[in-house]
Amino acid sequence: MVSARSFPDVLADRYASASMVDIWSPKGKVIAERRLWVAVLEAQQALGVEVPEGVVEAYRSAIEQVDLESIRQRELLTRHDVKARIEEFCVLAGHEHIHKAMTSRDLTENIEQLQVFNSLRLVCNKMVALVCQLGQHADAYADLVMVGRTHNVAAQATTLGKRFANFGNEALIGLDRLEGLLGRYQFRGLKGPVGTQQDLLELFGGDERKINELESRVSADMGFTEVLTSVGQVYPRSLDYDVVSALVQASSASANLAKAIRLMAGHGLIVEGFQDGQVGSSAMPGKRNARTCERICGLTAVVQGYADMVASLVGDQWNEGDVSCSVVRRVALPGAFLALDGQLEAALVVLSELSVCPDEIAVELRANLPALCATRVLLAAIAGGSGREEAHRIVSEHVPKADGFFAAVVADERLPLGEQEVERIRSDPLALAGAASAQARAFANRAKTLAAENLDIVYYSPESIL
Amino acid sequence: MVSARSFPDVLADRYASASMVDIWSPKGKVIAERRLWVAVLEAQQALGVEVPEGVVEAYRSAIEQVDLESIRQRELLTRHDVKARIEEFCVLAGHEHIHKAMTSRDLTENIEQLQVFNSLRLVCNKMVALVCQLGQHADAYADLVMVGRTHNVAAQATTLGKRFANFGNEALIGLDRLEGLLGRYQFRGLKGPVGTQQDLLELFGGDERKINELESRVSADMGFTEVLTSVGQVYPRSLDYDVVSALVQASSASANLAKAIRLMAGHGLIVEGFQDGQVGSSAMPGKRNARTCERICGLTAVVQGYADMVASLVGDQWNEGDVSCSVVRRVALPGAFLALDGQLEAALVVLSELSVCPDEIAVELRANLPALCATRVLLAAIAGGSGREEAHRIVSEHVPKADGFFAAVVADERLPLGEQEVERIRSDPLALAGAASAQARAFANRAKTLAAENLDIVYYSPESIL
Amino acid sequence: MVSARSFPDVLADRYASASMVDIWSPKGKVIAERRLWVAVLEAQQALGVEVPEGVVEAYRSAIEQVDLESIRQRELLTRHDVKARIEEFCVLAGHEHIHKAMTSRDLTENIEQLQVFNSLRLVCNKMVALVCQLGQHADAYADLVMVGRTHNVAAQATTLGKRFANFGNEALIGLDRLEGLLGRYQFRGLKGPVGTQQDLLELFGGDERKINELESRVSADMGFTEVLTSVGQVYPRSLDYDVVSALVQASSASANLAKAIRLMAGHGLIVEGFQDGQVGSSAMPGKRNARTCERICGLTAVVQGYADMVASLVGDQWNEGDVSCSVVRRVALPGAFLALDGQLEAALVVLSELSVCPDEIAVELRANLPALCATRVLLAAIAGGSGREEAHRIVSEHVPKADGFFAAVVADERLPLGEQEVERIRSDPLALAGAASAQARAFANRAKTLAAENLDIVYYSPESIL
Amino acid sequence: MVSARSFPDVLADRYASASMVDIWSPKGKVIAERRLWVAVLEAQQALGVEVPEGVVEAYRSAIEQVDLESIRQRELLTRHDVKARIEEFCVLAGHEHIHKAMTSRDLTENIEQLQVFNSLRLVCNKMVALVCQLGQHADAYADLVMVGRTHNVAAQATTLGKRFANFGNEALIGLDRLEGLLGRYQFRGLKGPVGTQQDLLELFGGDERKINELESRVSADMGFTEVLTSVGQVYPRSLDYDVVSALVQASSASANLAKAIRLMAGHGLIVEGFQDGQVGSSAMPGKRNARTCERICGLTAVVQGYADMVASLVGDQWNEGDVSCSVVRRVALPGAFLALDGQLEAALVVLSELSVCPDEIAVELRANLPALCATRVLLAAIAGGSGREEAHRIVSEHVPKADGFFAAVVADERLPLGEQEVERIRSDPLALAGAASAQARAFANRAKTLAAENLDIVYYSPESIL
Repeated sequence: MVSARSFPDVLADRYASASMVDIWSPKGKVIAERRLWVAVLEAQQALGVEVPEGVVEAYRSAIEQVDLESIRQRELLTRHDVKARIEEFCVLAGHEHIHKAMTSRDLTENIEQLQVFNSLRLVCNKMVALVCQLGQHADAYADLVMVGRTHNVAAQATTLGKRFANFGNEALIGLDRLEGLLGRYQFRGLKGPVGTQQDLLELFGGDERKINELESRVSADMGFTEVLTSVGQVYPRSLDYDVVSALVQASSASANLAKAIRLMAGHGLIVEGFQDGQVGSSAMPGKRNARTCERICGLTAVVQGYADMVASLVGDQWNEGDVSCSVVRRVALPGAFLALDGQLEAALVVLSELSVCPDEIAVELRANLPALCATRVLLAAIAGGSGREEAHRIVSEHVPKADGFFAAVVADERLPLGEQEVERIRSDPLALAGAASAQARAFANRAKTLAAENLDIVYYSPESIL
Repeated sequence: MVSARSFPDVLADRYASASMVDIWSPKGKVIAERRLWVAVLEAQQALGVEVPEGVVEAYRSAIEQVDLESIRQRELLTRHDVKARIEEFCVLAGHEHIHKAMTSRDLTENIEQLQVFNSLRLVCNKMVALVCQLGQHADAYADLVMVGRTHNVAAQATTLGKRFANFGNEALIGLDRLEGLLGRYQFRGLKGPVGTQQDLLELFGGDERKINELESRVSADMGFTEVLTSVGQVYPRSLDYDVVSALVQASSASANLAKAIRLMAGHGLIVEGFQDGQVGSSAMPGKRNARTCERICGLTAVVQGYADMVASLVGDQWNEGDVSCSVVRRVALPGAFLALDGQLEAALVVLSELSVCPDEIAVELRANLPALCATRVLLAAIAGGSGREEAHRIVSEHVPKADGFFAAVVADERLPLGEQEVERIRSDPLALAGAASAQARAFANRAKTLAAENLDIVYYSPESIL
Repeated sequence: MVSARSFPDVLADRYASASMVDIWSPKGKVIAERRLWVAVLEAQQALGVEVPEGVVEAYRSAIEQVDLESIRQRELLTRHDVKARIEEFCVLAGHEHIHKAMTSRDLTENIEQLQVFNSLRLVCNKMVALVCQLGQHADAYADLVMVGRTHNVAAQATTLGKRFANFGNEALIGLDRLEGLLGRYQFRGLKGPVGTQQDLLELFGGDERKINELESRVSADMGFTEVLTSVGQVYPRSLDYDVVSALVQASSASANLAKAIRLMAGHGLIVEGFQDGQVGSSAMPGKRNARTCERICGLTAVVQGYADMVASLVGDQWNEGDVSCSVVRRVALPGAFLALDGQLEAALVVLSELSVCPDEIAVELRANLPALCATRVLLAAIAGGSGREEAHRIVSEHVPKADGFFAAVVADERLPLGEQEVERIRSDPLALAGAASAQARAFANRAKTLAAENLDIVYYSPESIL
Repeated sequence: MVSARSFPDVLADRYASASMVDIWSPKGKVIAERRLWVAVLEAQQALGVEVPEGVVEAYRSAIEQVDLESIRQRELLTRHDVKARIEEFCVLAGHEHIHKAMTSRDLTENIEQLQVFNSLRLVCNKMVALVCQLGQHADAYADLVMVGRTHNVAAQATTLGKRFANFGNEALIGLDRLEGLLGRYQFRGLKGPVGTQQDLLELFGGDERKINELESRVSADMGFTEVLTSVGQVYPRSLDYDVVSALVQASSASANLAKAIRLMAGHGLIVEGFQDGQVGSSAMPGKRNARTCERICGLTAVVQGYADMVASLVGDQWNEGDVSCSVVRRVALPGAFLALDGQLEAALVVLSELSVCPDEIAVELRANLPALCATRVLLAAIAGGSGREEAHRIVSEHVPKADGFFAAVVADERLPLGEQEVERIRSDPLALAGAASAQARAFANRAKTLAAENLDIVYYSPESIL
């Protein structure tokens, strides 16, 4: 029989970065909890609760002694996870002083919010790095004209730089939302089993100022400034949905980038980078697949599935709360962050290793020139006096003639277009791309400004990925 | 055979308010589109595009002549919905001048964003009304002590006012998010078939200032100040997810309220209001069911399902875009707004008709006094010198004794608690509720401030509901 | 203000077929309900319940007199939809005899199951038609060799017929599941308000045989043979999920077909049919877009969103039931069936109008010959004595040489391959496709057998679509 | 920094049983793959492919030498997980003979299907155990009359046994679906990189009989009889959805059971079992919470979220396939099985430890007698000659009189009911429950039959849970 112990979380093991894994690992969580307990104990002591000499120190010196198996054995007996962790810490410290006037949720809610908050900051940093890399690409390819496609069929010309700018603008919207969320994210604080702070009031002889002071001290220790006022045992789970739906949204720009690359790769216009030693296909030698882009798309669906789990908590609080949300949040909160983190890491890798194929892009452009010019020809005909609907019908007739399109347009007497006019349209690809270059550069400049404000983040190098 | 024409949208027909229905109705949409076309035509004329005299007026006078069946017949032929609506409008006006240098999406994207934007504002208003009503209830019942429940089992005392405050605080978080979203919501603008504005540039002889001016004029006409810069044919669909996930979040407070009422109704503590003539159950006379609260919970699941549809668009843009998102958005965007609107209307009705049963609340409180006092007894024992873990074990032994609990605690020599101390704990229900009253009043005050700033909205009366 | 009355259900209005619309339309539902009431009344009469002469006839003659607005007005007063419909029917008939010993759910549950059951049969028919059409295409193109792609990049040769066969096999799996579901679908029957049949027992003086007989008669009238035994007020909602998840699964084959066509259209290999008068793009004349395929993909996401709504009912029954599931099912059950119906209709249209472009397919094949032959070259090298891993590395080196690939392979002394051997590999495209033709024909034969068993269905012509 | 290695999968670590964990653990998967490779190698050898003596044995003896870290290091270099595992196995065996004429998916698809198939069988066993335990409870409490509730409010009497029977019947439907799925589950087999079996044909010199024979031998080795005929690189992903949606459905009965217990616990009617040493609440001594039932509900939402991930694969196959589904399936397939397994284990624990409180059930019944009798009173009045609608109105007036209800009914001259008649209704609780006992016993008998057919499974004892 294989032990559960050798069954790693697949997202932590294969996809996410070490910094995100650290935040959500079991050991990291135990340490964070112990820090909170000690912070509360110290604050209680400072506010007059009697704590014998040496107790705080005894607890503090045991913080890093994490034996997950011992905790598990205790939980098997008590069937109560927090109780198990209290006992373990108390045995290590040799005292029974922590968790005083606290309920389990005074511990777990706050720790989970801390994990969420720190993870959101990490995601913001990676989104900044993504925007900056997209900015560099938008700039580098601002004038590289290519076939723009709607319905996956050649439509009008655009530039590759503009494509990067499109994704970049979407990433900026996602980043905006994340920053708005961080700015208004509220800490639950110490509220007791039903949210009334009765145990704390009891502990402090009914002195409300003291419990407010306690909450302020502990919150500040954890890095929060905003604290919720009226909650039950749990903070509103719609706040978790706020968070995870922001992650879904944040995943969109890189997923769209990945999908675009997968489509372009099908036409040989772009190739996802290979590293030394990488094998494309075990059966088909020489094949270069956009595997990492495919992974990006897959991770996007994973984040969404976690959002679906968290959505089940919306409007499902019974009275002051219970633990029906527990396993959902144990699975979905780390899951969503680890998956998005892996997705953004993968996107940064793809952007740093991408190979653009300008020759193939040019070949494709030439082959689609009639279709790409059709709109301009239509507008020129209208400008020359044709009725819009009639001109539309006539031009539609000629487009399928491919290479013969331009001659047919000139020859058609129903259209007020001469050879010179048609040649003017045909000969200037960049003009066919309208404001594409300008838009790409506008985005690139915006990304440069962001980069200048975040010099530490911009040079973030994604980890090696599997 | 039943005609599709007599198959109304069930959410519009049964649940949503008239003001939300108006925004999304087919007729309303056609009128909005025609206004946009005329606005663009006028702006083009002002910027030098030749439009013969009388043309703008001819279009304008046809705006309200909406014949949905005629449009449908045209679409059956062209298999292109926008084309059908262009033709219809042109035939009515007797000209072919609208939609010049525009693509379908220059029309539909902007109209849909307008619908979204106006709907979001309507939702914000109803959330304000919800917060204000919750504030009134929080105030009215701030001191009404009741059994607080965790795991659906009596835990500690709280007050009914605090329960309303809990939901109110959650509603405030949802409102906050909606307002943040409205503040940063960006209009797609006129970008052409692949987003490059090439047709407009062509129309204006390459003069970029003119197309910027055109976009500004039209956007201002529609009520927007923010315009996206670099997009493809479509604006990023993650913006739709931003919107619909905000609706899911906004639904949570009223759904939690509804679930709490359903649970309380099971104990007879609260009754959802009846109106004259209403029948509780066709089979069981006299039964008073929390039907509207159940509807609120159902509508919450409906909003989530629509969010799931919209999530499918995240990261699924192919190249510059196509219409694979079309039916999804036709179904999910109105669906989500109509459902949430119906949910909020229902919540406002419930709050305005609710009957609280103070006698039953008092009976329940008395019956659960031992359990409710257990924590205070525990803390008193610790304060009197007991070790926390040992005291926990002893008190646990006595709780199941129900009415005999208090005597047993006094009699147990292992606990340092006298009769007076125990009587002090038992006799003051409001003290058992800790800071509940204060929290309820704090929220009520916040709601009053919001009400004072939104006098028009606060007195909003929900429509009669089915 | 626009009336809700002119707000048609978008799926019924634009996408679904008339036969599916009929099943779910409000009028059709009222008629079905009245038929059930009359069937119950007759059965009760037959089993000894006193019903005055002429009463059954009076009700029966009123069945088709459906005034939805009058019913709505009654509901606005009673706030109880079934009660409103009982009153309306009684007023029309001039009696008060229906719904005796029945609860609302004895009516609505059974009617909804009838709608579901009939809709499932309709879906099965369309799946059969889909399989048969795919069979014809698999047959017609069984030997048309084309580039097979993995990771969207040329991999090995396949045939177009095999692609159709792949989708066809998937459709068969979906059809299998639907038929299994139909075979075990159980009718709730008449169970009363909490499922105990107490009211019926009362009506029949405690005679259990009579209520069993009543249930049998009514069920048979509705077309069911299987009846649930122990339920609460409602049948288990996981049965709805059984149904809607089967619809999601059934949507997959046509969605994969649509996606394949959209990808092939991007390479010009296949074109979705155009009908006379159809306009490809209002801005870009001559463009032929796979719009219907995009719609198919969109409708797939819509069905999934409805499945998500129905999933919210799984495990969410409170006690014997309530109406929190009501709006969810009002929206999601018709929604899912209408959407899937529209999707299958669209797929049948696409298959009947599709244009294959054999010249473009041949051009693409030639251009990718080196990559397509790489595996065969590798295997030939292994057969000639090379180690697998070394041969893989060498062949990988040569693939990027494109047209120079075959010469390079022959020239490379590390590979045991002569010119003749390489020429053999290169010159027989159909051989490159392995068993593709055989697999395509095997599926085509299976589809022919199915067609022979369902002659009425096979010739089903999809309705004209928008 | 915490290592990813110490980040266990939370579902495997805390919730699932060892037998399910074994199926999905990384080590178990590597071993299964190696078995497949050896099976293919042996079959190839038997069919004439030259394999030097000792090679098969060398591979076979290395099967159990699993060094996950070494494999990981190889993958970091090749960026191709299957390639890494091939190399590792070849190095261990000292040969390069496995995976001949196979593509990665010939390995991974089949192994994953094997895991799915074995897991489905395990789930079926636990569903059988669940049905049998529910049958025992249905039997034991078949006559224990209790308040039936609709809208969470007292409606009519039922029996506790019937409640168990309701869930049991739902479990039977879920089991039925699972067994239907197992019966038609098809194995992908060896199809090569694009599904054409070209490499195998090459290997066997174009002999189709040999590849069919190869596929048959290997499939039989894996335990499958049904093999798919025409697929691409991957089997249709809607088959995964078939599986995971069946798991969602299977979760419903135990989730409804858990929700019912949570609601009953709120009224003190039933208590989830405690084990020695278990602690109810760290803050509130003596509290007995339905924690495991809450967990069951949470795990249900988790399974649904995984279904949502898998739904994203429906209709999303590009051409012959790619790895965009990889991470989705790596996360969602084990996730869904581990979560459902944990849910069923928890349900079995709850059923085996449950405490029913007959006294509290009786107290509640007496308190609600007027409401419970209202329907019978109504029917008696109709039987006595009252019009249905009028009688309904009158009885509704009296119900709120609670204890005074029966006297009021007798006294009301508009109702044709005497004291004896009313007393008859009031005095026989079991008669109020209609056919509840009979239905409960009918289900119990069905469960006994199932038990007799599955003696090994029935006595399955769930593992200890956290």
